[in-house]
Amino acid sequence: MGPHPAVADVRRAVRHALGDLESGDLVLVACSGGADSLALAAALGFTAPRMNLRAGLLTVDHGLQAGSPERADDVIRLAPGLELGLAEALPVSVGTAGGPEAAAREARYAALSEASARLGAVAVLLGHTRDDQAETVLLRLTRGSGTRSLAGMPARAGIYRRPLLELGRETTAAACAALGLVPWDDPHNLDIRYTRVRVRERLLPVLEDELGPGIAEALARTATLCRDDADALDAWADSAYLRAIVRDCALSDIEAVVVTVAELEDLPAAVRRRVLRRAAIEAGAPPGTLAASHIFQVDRLVTSWRGQRRVEVPGGVGAVRRCGTLIFARQ
Amino acid sequence: MGPHPAVADVRRAVRHALGDLESGDLVLVACSGGADSLALAAALGFTAPRMNLRAGLLTVDHGLQAGSPERADDVIRLAPGLELGLAEALPVSVGTAGGPEAAAREARYAALSEASARLGAVAVLLGHTRDDQAETVLLRLTRGSGTRSLAGMPARAGIYRRPLLELGRETTAAACAALGLVPWDDPHNLDIRYTRVRVRERLLPVLEDELGPGIAEALARTATLCRDDADALDAWADSAYLRAIVRDCALSDIEAVVVTVAELEDLPAAVRRRVLRRAAIEAGAPPGTLAASHIFQVDRLVTSWRGQRRVEVPGGVGAVRRCGTLIFARQ
Repeated sequence: MGPHPAVADVRRAVRHALGDLESGDLVLVACSGGADSLALAAALGFTAPRMNLRAGLLTVDHGLQAGSPERADDVIRLAPGLELGLAEALPVSVGTAGGPEAAAREARYAALSEASARLGAVAVLLGHTRDDQAETVLLRLTRGSGTRSLAGMPARAGIYRRPLLELGRETTAAACAALGLVPWDDPHNLDIRYTRVRVRERLLPVLEDELGPGIAEALARTATLCRDDADALDAWADSAYLRAIVRDCALSDIEAVVVTVAELEDLPAAVRRRVLRRAAIEAGAPPGTLAASHIFQVDRLVTSWRGQRRVEVPGGVGAVRRCGTLIFARQ
Repeated sequence: MGPHPAVADVRRAVRHALGDLESGDLVLVACSGGADSLALAAALGFTAPRMNLRAGLLTVDHGLQAGSPERADDVIRLAPGLELGLAEALPVSVGTAGGPEAAAREARYAALSEASARLGAVAVLLGHTRDDQAETVLLRLTRGSGTRSLAGMPARAGIYRRPLLELGRETTAAACAALGLVPWDDPHNLDIRYTRVRVRERLLPVLEDELGPGIAEALARTATLCRDDADALDAWADSAYLRAIVRDCALSDIEAVVVTVAELEDLPAAVRRRVLRRAAIEAGAPPGTLAASHIFQVDRLVTSWRGQRRVEVPGGVGAVRRCGTLIFARQ
């Protein structure tokens, strides 16, 4: 008798995500003890030895709830039964910058990156499912920030891999049940002070009720299509940037970025604005605070030129038009 | 004393939308009598003579509700007071194909196109606002159909122009009130059998409640960014298609579309799939039923070639790979 279909689905997804690794490579799984990452950890423990990979488990102790260290210990204690020889709890201290969700995320990824480097891992698996992806797309949609943002979470980024992005939460729950694993229900997952919890508990159910089932799949499909579109446009913008930039520029010693207006004029708006964004970032504007509205202003120096003055963007960087070029520099 | 700010906003939007027209051109407004199109009609009546344009009003009588012809007459009778010299009611008969909303839309646009051609108009203005755009984006998002679909309604398409896409519904309501115009509240706008009504009345309010205000603006901004992205990718795909297509092909007399695989292999996935979609459509596949899933299958003939058989797409069209080309043709 084969494994339960849900267990097989999770294992297949993990196998697929690790197909490019070499014999002996170390793969870690970030496990909170929740159903998604617990099913993922079990699948990694099963799959890794069959692919001649080494496998281990990390669990982050955010220290935000009473009993948090004991929770981490509980997860660590599961590791041997999941055939994961290596297991570490990573205590972190969560700051406040950017709100509680962003601060916890930042602390978590910093700890995972540090541990994976220290342990010599080639990949860290994350348990995000199709439902998490749908929530992400919905959250980002409502920020009005475009195709790259709607692309949601990537299946791979640096050392991180998300094997479960095409599986629903019901699959990981079923896999845990079939394996006799009891997931931990994080009370934060029901705390409606968190935006993501409100999206999950209040918005998505209303969307399903009003528009019919299959919303999570549709949102995840949107993410995939938007990712491919954003990748193609970024590739185009990269080559356009290299054509537009003035290399042997006398200004280069004052850290200016200089691009030729004539190279920009015939580009489609979407590509031109990506080139301008990159130029502003290369000149020192912080990507996180550089908004579409800033780039629209800079773009008017190209498309509606009538002698405007310097356009300010974040990071003290400004753009001016001089002699057929745009010069991005700090004041 | 100048006009009420909302009246000024609508007039400015109309003036901006008509800036490219020539003296003496005829512009029509499609007016249901609702607040959006009524404010638009009033702004056109005010603006057109000041731009040396002729202006008129069309109202479609869908014949779906009791008193519908009388409603159309009421709208027509408003025209002289709005300084619109020409006014016509267009009775249509709404079919059932594609559901009630799609059938009404199709009948409406057919009548508007016919009348504008007969009357020699250069533009027909539609009263869609930012709120309509937000509803459209939300509806399409949940279909999972990608960037072009998320681009929502264009500000211009053929003879149609939508001057109000950057204004909210509260502005058209305020403009009507300031001008002493009493809009008609179409009971269909509250009929929750219509998907769009459920989006407006049930979904968007929950989105605002859970994620904060400004959702409609954010969704409309998403639409604008996605439109620019989709335009750029379509332009790339158009030129890639022209490079990939085999022109002097012996098969051309059997209405095949033949593209060179080598020209496709190095394209980003998003562009390659757009080229394949266009090839399928040129070979006779109906755009409306040609889904992303069909194109993904065809794409595997390029990216995962291992001797697959013909891939069927709608319209009886199939794609086969032969001698370094993909051949799209009816059986």
